[in-house]
Amino acid sequence: MSELIVHTFDWVPQMPRGFVRDIRVRWAMEEAGMPYRVVGVPFRERGADHFAHQPFGQVPWLTDGDISIFEAGAILLYLAERSENLMPKDARGRADVIQWAFAALNSVEMASLPWALFKFENDDSQTPGKKLLDTFLAGRLGHMEKVLATREWLAGNFSIADIQMADALRVVDSFGGLGEHEACKAYVARATSRPAFVKSHADQMAHFAKAD
Amino acid sequence: MSELIVHTFDWVPQMPRGFVRDIRVRWAMEEAGMPYRVVGVPFRERGADHFAHQPFGQVPWLTDGDISIFEAGAILLYLAERSENLMPKDARGRADVIQWAFAALNSVEMASLPWALFKFENDDSQTPGKKLLDTFLAGRLGHMEKVLATREWLAGNFSIADIQMADALRVVDSFGGLGEHEACKAYVARATSRPAFVKSHADQMAHFAKAD
Repeated sequence: MSELIVHTFDWVPQMPRGFVRDIRVRWAMEEAGMPYRVVGVPFRERGADHFAHQPFGQVPWLTDGDISIFEAGAILLYLAERSENLMPKDARGRADVIQWAFAALNSVEMASLPWALFKFENDDSQTPGKKLLDTFLAGRLGHMEKVLATREWLAGNFSIADIQMADALRVVDSFGGLGEHEACKAYVARATSRPAFVKSHADQMAHFAKAD
Repeated sequence: MSELIVHTFDWVPQMPRGFVRDIRVRWAMEEAGMPYRVVGVPFRERGADHFAHQPFGQVPWLTDGDISIFEAGAILLYLAERSENLMPKDARGRADVIQWAFAALNSVEMASLPWALFKFENDDSQTPGKKLLDTFLAGRLGHMEKVLATREWLAGNFSIADIQMADALRVVDSFGGLGEHEACKAYVARATSRPAFVKSHADQMAHFAKAD
């Protein structure tokens, strides 16, 4: 493995700080004890080189020698192939982590992220579409509550699935959206008290503050 | 590899037919030329066994001997590890397919699916949150238009990334949401004219029709 470099913005406004997606990549590398370097790329002027690495103009992307990967989910899977702190090596264990990693993104965050967009806008409208979106999230949280009431982590030991699920639920929690889902709240608290998260969060905050 | 069994609902209402997520799994197995069997599970009464395989009460899930996997994205990756028709074996090629597979789900479908929920409800409201959601999708389609104007498939040869991206864009297209994005429309037409898609779609329609 060459030097691992995480590319994130050089600066972002106050609101998303602590939630910018490079935190998932930092967190995974801290859990795995992998050395890495963080490089800032312009937030305001996103050039052709940015789009060549990340075609949506977003962050993060990871470079490992001549390999460049975007999408936090893809990066976490790439790192997990290289550390048993992030995913076991046996076929059943791998399948379990990978299904939960996709579930975090596609069954939970697919509901929670659009829900959060309305919260960002302080939009509490209850049009038919919005009601369906609220119901979509409530259903997913209800199922997660049952799952998390019975286990510490999603797939055996802590894994990349937990990084993604806890980070998705953390956003809901930040808007008070976990309500009476005590197992979900306890899971977010458990995950975010891990030293690797605490360091990653502090590092991200310091990275953006440095540019103010 | 044991017998591959795709579990989907035994019946669904008319509206989602042709779009139920088992189509992605069928499509991948048709592309790979893998034999498989489809098993229907109750749509109306989802029991403990269903939730043991799919904790959100959704479909599909795949069984391969004693391995059981839910989330279409995870299933496609599992199948892709077993067929070069779905993903190349070299590290760069793999990373490219995997990043685009996540992009299909997390950068495009994360915008398009909630947008489609409003369309399902014939909800054209323009509250601040809904405007942000519309802007989110428009941005993603704008970037995809540039990408698809320059290439036939997302990551070299046709791959699981195309199954997921084309299927996500197909839903937007079905509501007329691709607008003037000619490269996106041509890509959806190109992907859905593949014999593996045509067969998978016909098979899904026949599977649900049989139960009427």
